[in-house]
Amino acid sequence: MERGFDIVKAGHIEFLVTDMDEAKRFYVDTLGFVVTEADRSHLYLRGLEDRTHHSLVLTKSASPGVGHFAFRVAEEKGLKAIEAVAKAHGGTTRWVEPGEEKGQGKALLVEDQFGFPVEFYTKMEKEEWMLQKYQNYRGAKVMRLDHFNIMLPDAASAFRWYVDSLGFGCTEVTETEGSKPALWAAWLRRKHTCHDIALTTGKGPRVHHAGFTVSDRSSIMDAADLLASSGYLKSMERGPGRHGVSNAFFLYLRDPDGNRVELYTGDYISADPDWVPIRWKLNDPQRQTFWGAPTPASWFNEAMRVKSPRTGRFASVASPKIKDRPDYLLAAK
Amino acid sequence: MERGFDIVKAGHIEFLVTDMDEAKRFYVDTLGFVVTEADRSHLYLRGLEDRTHHSLVLTKSASPGVGHFAFRVAEEKGLKAIEAVAKAHGGTTRWVEPGEEKGQGKALLVEDQFGFPVEFYTKMEKEEWMLQKYQNYRGAKVMRLDHFNIMLPDAASAFRWYVDSLGFGCTEVTETEGSKPALWAAWLRRKHTCHDIALTTGKGPRVHHAGFTVSDRSSIMDAADLLASSGYLKSMERGPGRHGVSNAFFLYLRDPDGNRVELYTGDYISADPDWVPIRWKLNDPQRQTFWGAPTPASWFNEAMRVKSPRTGRFASVASPKIKDRPDYLLAAK
Amino acid sequence: MERGFDIVKAGHIEFLVTDMDEAKRFYVDTLGFVVTEADRSHLYLRGLEDRTHHSLVLTKSASPGVGHFAFRVAEEKGLKAIEAVAKAHGGTTRWVEPGEEKGQGKALLVEDQFGFPVEFYTKMEKEEWMLQKYQNYRGAKVMRLDHFNIMLPDAASAFRWYVDSLGFGCTEVTETEGSKPALWAAWLRRKHTCHDIALTTGKGPRVHHAGFTVSDRSSIMDAADLLASSGYLKSMERGPGRHGVSNAFFLYLRDPDGNRVELYTGDYISADPDWVPIRWKLNDPQRQTFWGAPTPASWFNEAMRVKSPRTGRFASVASPKIKDRPDYLLAAK
Amino acid sequence: MERGFDIVKAGHIEFLVTDMDEAKRFYVDTLGFVVTEADRSHLYLRGLEDRTHHSLVLTKSASPGVGHFAFRVAEEKGLKAIEAVAKAHGGTTRWVEPGEEKGQGKALLVEDQFGFPVEFYTKMEKEEWMLQKYQNYRGAKVMRLDHFNIMLPDAASAFRWYVDSLGFGCTEVTETEGSKPALWAAWLRRKHTCHDIALTTGKGPRVHHAGFTVSDRSSIMDAADLLASSGYLKSMERGPGRHGVSNAFFLYLRDPDGNRVELYTGDYISADPDWVPIRWKLNDPQRQTFWGAPTPASWFNEAMRVKSPRTGRFASVASPKIKDRPDYLLAAK
Repeated sequence: MERGFDIVKAGHIEFLVTDMDEAKRFYVDTLGFVVTEADRSHLYLRGLEDRTHHSLVLTKSASPGVGHFAFRVAEEKGLKAIEAVAKAHGGTTRWVEPGEEKGQGKALLVEDQFGFPVEFYTKMEKEEWMLQKYQNYRGAKVMRLDHFNIMLPDAASAFRWYVDSLGFGCTEVTETEGSKPALWAAWLRRKHTCHDIALTTGKGPRVHHAGFTVSDRSSIMDAADLLASSGYLKSMERGPGRHGVSNAFFLYLRDPDGNRVELYTGDYISADPDWVPIRWKLNDPQRQTFWGAPTPASWFNEAMRVKSPRTGRFASVASPKIKDRPDYLLAAK
Repeated sequence: MERGFDIVKAGHIEFLVTDMDEAKRFYVDTLGFVVTEADRSHLYLRGLEDRTHHSLVLTKSASPGVGHFAFRVAEEKGLKAIEAVAKAHGGTTRWVEPGEEKGQGKALLVEDQFGFPVEFYTKMEKEEWMLQKYQNYRGAKVMRLDHFNIMLPDAASAFRWYVDSLGFGCTEVTETEGSKPALWAAWLRRKHTCHDIALTTGKGPRVHHAGFTVSDRSSIMDAADLLASSGYLKSMERGPGRHGVSNAFFLYLRDPDGNRVELYTGDYISADPDWVPIRWKLNDPQRQTFWGAPTPASWFNEAMRVKSPRTGRFASVASPKIKDRPDYLLAAK
Repeated sequence: MERGFDIVKAGHIEFLVTDMDEAKRFYVDTLGFVVTEADRSHLYLRGLEDRTHHSLVLTKSASPGVGHFAFRVAEEKGLKAIEAVAKAHGGTTRWVEPGEEKGQGKALLVEDQFGFPVEFYTKMEKEEWMLQKYQNYRGAKVMRLDHFNIMLPDAASAFRWYVDSLGFGCTEVTETEGSKPALWAAWLRRKHTCHDIALTTGKGPRVHHAGFTVSDRSSIMDAADLLASSGYLKSMERGPGRHGVSNAFFLYLRDPDGNRVELYTGDYISADPDWVPIRWKLNDPQRQTFWGAPTPASWFNEAMRVKSPRTGRFASVASPKIKDRPDYLLAAK
Repeated sequence: MERGFDIVKAGHIEFLVTDMDEAKRFYVDTLGFVVTEADRSHLYLRGLEDRTHHSLVLTKSASPGVGHFAFRVAEEKGLKAIEAVAKAHGGTTRWVEPGEEKGQGKALLVEDQFGFPVEFYTKMEKEEWMLQKYQNYRGAKVMRLDHFNIMLPDAASAFRWYVDSLGFGCTEVTETEGSKPALWAAWLRRKHTCHDIALTTGKGPRVHHAGFTVSDRSSIMDAADLLASSGYLKSMERGPGRHGVSNAFFLYLRDPDGNRVELYTGDYISADPDWVPIRWKLNDPQRQTFWGAPTPASWFNEAMRVKSPRTGRFASVASPKIKDRPDYLLAAK
């Protein structure tokens, strides 16, 4: 804990939804999230493997998007150290009181220098573990939050922030072609999986998706069958398929508001501190989908806007200086 | 249709249960059977792949057991031909009027020369096909009835009856050891799978189990997890595992009354009319469980009594003249 | 056997390949077909569940395509009856002597009224069953031939030929939209699965693909991973995915010559003689892919030419009078 | 790194084998380990997910057993700190020079106070990653080393050593029944999975097994089929099944020398520093096998002897003061 803090893992995310009943039908009745608690404007959800109050919060809102995403920190004293480093890098911060977000202890809410609303917290109420309560496995059988994928114009700066200042390890990168390749995307982790957060080049600040794990490929196939016969045919944006990056098996979904979640399974353990990042070229056809199926344009065009903790309005969005997608999709643009 | 009739497949079975609520919790809430219809003393169930009124009938009764099992016949005129051959072989018969069994047309109920209550029918009401209505897949996701397994003292005579008189094909047999091997068990089929009925040597007439298919091995694993966390730990009598005979993947269950069902998946297509039966020796350790796990003694000792259509009482049971189990279990007996 | 013959099932198919080494690397080393026998210009292959000499013959040829496809017939006397009906419907026939095709008994080769080379045979040499010899399971673990899919201008006439004259049952159909829907495709079976042959509207006579089963969805996922890392990325034309029609899970592959095979698993048992065909509309987005993924244009444009038994040349091809694909693909054409 | 060292994960284990050809047939040809290197008396193996020289070393020896097991440490300076703490607790140590164990940098070999030969190392040569080279997936498709399970008379002392002195976290424990429960077993982790090492009460010091991961349940089923048809029927000691502890899916195997390996998949991510251990009672029938199948007596009686680094002879073994198995197995003992 040389930095004075120790980030544990991606902890939870807040999705803004315009119709709570529709959102509940999607996340609870169909994907199988467990309901911990609800109030007039929030639904607090967790996966079957999650042991604390929530990994996904749905908040009733006039427009879809992301309220904030949050990392769990090992000790409360670490929050003050994060406050200092965030401010030193141009972020603004405010303290979130215990219970201000249900089930959560004291937390630090940062609007970072890229415009993302990122929360850091240490304590969250323990909840019943459903892992071996198989009678509660329903729908897509979502197990736990795994990662966030964010999109922004300058992935290289965000890389330095997350790796140098926040202490993330890098497992994989994507670079542009040419003699002077630019960093195009990076997969960064604190817990010992492929990633807790991925940084992607594109219009931003926006959140591209939140990834939740399922137990195996069969669960993803079952989820696809279920969605296809439950009126969610158009929710299935991409997959099922195998990623090149991460090697995971995936299915990308859009909720009724267009917020994007990934069902995800089968990446690897990355505990080694001297891990040499896997390097991909942006145009490699197997990078995104190992089986070669092209990624739809919506995947590059659409992402979730993020709410500014300062203004309460959605952050304005800027375009990257380098290309935001592989050449074969640029051609079709 | 040289015989004047054409048996299509194993069609349905009637299980006697002492507590309908408990039975429903097991078959519907946990195994995922679809309810077609219920009345005061019956519950008519079908699998997700079944297209007609029922493949399993639960009948409220003072004691558990089997009311009857039934084969579907291609044309109604075939029923009269079966009546003739059944009587010629010492069976007794009676006609079941349309609707006497809910959803079913005219049928012939035979008490065969071995004491089994066997129904033959041609028409059953069509029901909604759930095959692609994945929102209705629950629990063990039972797909369809596959086969009956019956136990009786003289399997060789039953073999001749089913093969020579009723026109079944034989896919696999088990024989005793020694220079004059006796037929110990046979797997017989009309539809193009491993079997519609298996004949096993043992105290009888009794029905050993009814086999219902699931889609794949994952479904069986999921079912085991579900049963183990739903209070049905003791229901799991044997498996999951791979059969030597049939090559299918299995899990044997006892319902709350002790009636036995098999979840079954992954046998083969047996359409060839010149199929040469696979031959097994009774003592081969891989015969019952390809992975070598020993079969519990209850599997040989316990089976379902059958109700006599003539007397309405359970048929009395006789013992076989040859051994009723492999030597390694005889030693332990 | 009212017609004097009894077709059992789709039996085998002959693919023409220009480079036997390349073909062997694809079919044997990668897909895991079992080699029964080879000679200078043929490779005789079977699946792990096949019990006879071959279900796929690769024949060295100057151009790719299909030499013939073949149905197994129950008894040899049936072949003469088929000869009569084929001639009566405008087909031409010739007798194939025992051993003329390796491992096969006497057979009838028909060039049917639509220009397809169709063989009928009763006897084929028995081979070792690999079903439980799991040490021989390799690659995509192909189990057995399941069906042929043929393309021709007039599917309705072919439907009458196969159903009325050859005795096939119909499990599913696709019709065009509108008040006078035309039959666009049909799935026909002799064995108790979804189909032995499918008839599709398009330029023909051509064979669209041969379908081979694998054991489950995991096998298809494993095959996709293997193909993607063995230099066969471009071989994966469509899938993996779930079919609407047949409900099977699929992956379509093009061999190094462009011949098309389907890996196929998870359809249903269709033993009932009064089966009511499932009806699909051509434009239904879930018809071809239950999860909604669009079918590539190559799937409609490309198919295998067939060799005329009379001339030894490829049959000339005609176009259908009705549209040959769904409207959303016509628009893109 | 408050302790001056940071243990990363279970790194590798050395199994002693009496017949290298037989061992290779088992581990390489059947289980699918990747061969990194071989010399006259060693075979260096890794899994498909391993990125360094070896996770399993087979060493030709007069008797089976374990030469040593090893933990990876984050930085080389940490090794000296471990030396100090090991000596302070009564262990003996010696330095292993770079290359003395092939592919490995400088290491510390400890004979700990319980008699186990435990190596600590920081550097190992990088090897080609097979994770996405699916053409190299064979047999049981072993992915990576996951954990060691050791057996010793005093699990409580070992718990204090691993947790208090070496910094392991505890995910699950088993305790004896009664008003003063004793610690019977513990699952301890450094990497973010269920465990890197498990401590079990029994005659010791002995190593009970080494656990290697596979990708999913299907891989374990496939492995069971393969082993059963490759002459390894008796190698399958226990499973496949679901563990209560760890929730993982498992199959226990004995190699030709009786050394024990576990194929293991599907536990959970345990990154949280405030993880509250799951508590099990020794007699809970679902603790070892969630589906209730009894554990064979051999699982409690048999384990691998360990070689003393000081004497080069197998460590002598002592019995625990508390019972070494559940009551239902004690009764049968």
